[in-house]
Amino acid sequence: MLSLLQLSGRHLLSVRTVQCLNTARVYSAHMAANKRVAVILAGCGVYDGSEIHEASAVLVHLSRGGASVNMFAPNIDQMHVINHLKGEPSEEKRNVLVESARLARGNIQDLSKLGVKDHDAIIVPGGFGAAKNLCTWAVQGKDCSVNDQVKAALQAFHGEGKPIGLCCIAPVLAAKVFSGCEVTVGIENDDKYPNTTDTAAAINSLGCKHMSTGVGESHVDEKNKLVSTSAFMCDAPIHEIFDGIGSMVRAVLKLA
Amino acid sequence: MLSLLQLSGRHLLSVRTVQCLNTARVYSAHMAANKRVAVILAGCGVYDGSEIHEASAVLVHLSRGGASVNMFAPNIDQMHVINHLKGEPSEEKRNVLVESARLARGNIQDLSKLGVKDHDAIIVPGGFGAAKNLCTWAVQGKDCSVNDQVKAALQAFHGEGKPIGLCCIAPVLAAKVFSGCEVTVGIENDDKYPNTTDTAAAINSLGCKHMSTGVGESHVDEKNKLVSTSAFMCDAPIHEIFDGIGSMVRAVLKLA
Repeated sequence: MLSLLQLSGRHLLSVRTVQCLNTARVYSAHMAANKRVAVILAGCGVYDGSEIHEASAVLVHLSRGGASVNMFAPNIDQMHVINHLKGEPSEEKRNVLVESARLARGNIQDLSKLGVKDHDAIIVPGGFGAAKNLCTWAVQGKDCSVNDQVKAALQAFHGEGKPIGLCCIAPVLAAKVFSGCEVTVGIENDDKYPNTTDTAAAINSLGCKHMSTGVGESHVDEKNKLVSTSAFMCDAPIHEIFDGIGSMVRAVLKLA
Repeated sequence: MLSLLQLSGRHLLSVRTVQCLNTARVYSAHMAANKRVAVILAGCGVYDGSEIHEASAVLVHLSRGGASVNMFAPNIDQMHVINHLKGEPSEEKRNVLVESARLARGNIQDLSKLGVKDHDAIIVPGGFGAAKNLCTWAVQGKDCSVNDQVKAALQAFHGEGKPIGLCCIAPVLAAKVFSGCEVTVGIENDDKYPNTTDTAAAINSLGCKHMSTGVGESHVDEKNKLVSTSAFMCDAPIHEIFDGIGSMVRAVLKLA
């Protein structure tokens, strides 16, 4: 966790003022018998990392549902860094775990430390990071490879019958790892979901079944305990995306 | 805005997959007669930028309230870059506008372009960025200086009788700019708000009045049309912070 003294000593920040934002928990532990949920992040920013608003919505809904949360990310370089203002790659290098720590307010661990026994469920928000850093879908589509640690984590939770929640493009991870599963990335042949039709076709070509589902809802694959929601795959107001993620999180907690 | 071709052409990403997350609006424009709200960001990450979950909550609540949103940030270097995993400054340089664009999914403008006539209200989320990049409170406390563009924006909205919403540590901006105003940064002498008492004392010493207010609520200074909420100044579960920001946003929209 963040050391206030390191910050203040090296930068002449008064401890008083440095501390003033460093006190709150991202997680909720306000209910007894909490479900323990692991969240896998992929950086911080839609175009090269986790989609920020999806990740935040996951945390808000988990907190409201009384879950305790541990966050994890792979300790690897991002595929690349996108200047989100210009929409262009930059020459920078950034580390997925270090950037994910921005979303986690510093409280995050190397994905290699994730123990399935310590958790009742796992959730992966979307954003290009899911398709660039957790697997290579953004470059190779259905022929992508999945990061070994991510694949092992998903298989471990699945193997123990623990639920997996996925937003936006992240359901392609399940499609790649669990042949025959059902996921949604939105509604096919609907202008509000401009990329869903092609993504769904790729999912189906992997032997899985795409289930058209609106942005405010989530699809539950009961057999595989997979819950998915389209989130920013839909051109919708952000509060509708927030609500759809709420549907996914509640279904995950119910299955856990 | 992000050019898909720039992304895909330079990095062998298929347009299909690159597009798949690039379609949704951060903003809501789903109601007629929307209020037009400017949001000022200060980077992306609690320790050197805007607090991510506060900024996201502001956008979700504005969207649910039917507001249209334009985001702005100063085109300046961050005071410094904090490695959020280690909690230490790094040697990197990052630009406030470029990093804020991560929160805005690319749809953000230089703060110099902000026109008060085009908006009905303005909101500033918290995070250390508000105290490091928008003013120098993190280093100088009540003797801080406020960024000229930020100060001009706040004065312009205030001068036109348009409401200003502030989260977390951002209310110190109002305390510095509007002598005699009322703001909250939480509840004084309460362990759940470990830094509120000292911050409140500094606010009072500026001739303003600190109003102790719980995390789920907001304080409205009717005379100055200032609405503030403590957010992560409180050691609370994230959904309570989300709800407090909702209280602030609704009050701002009501005053607009």
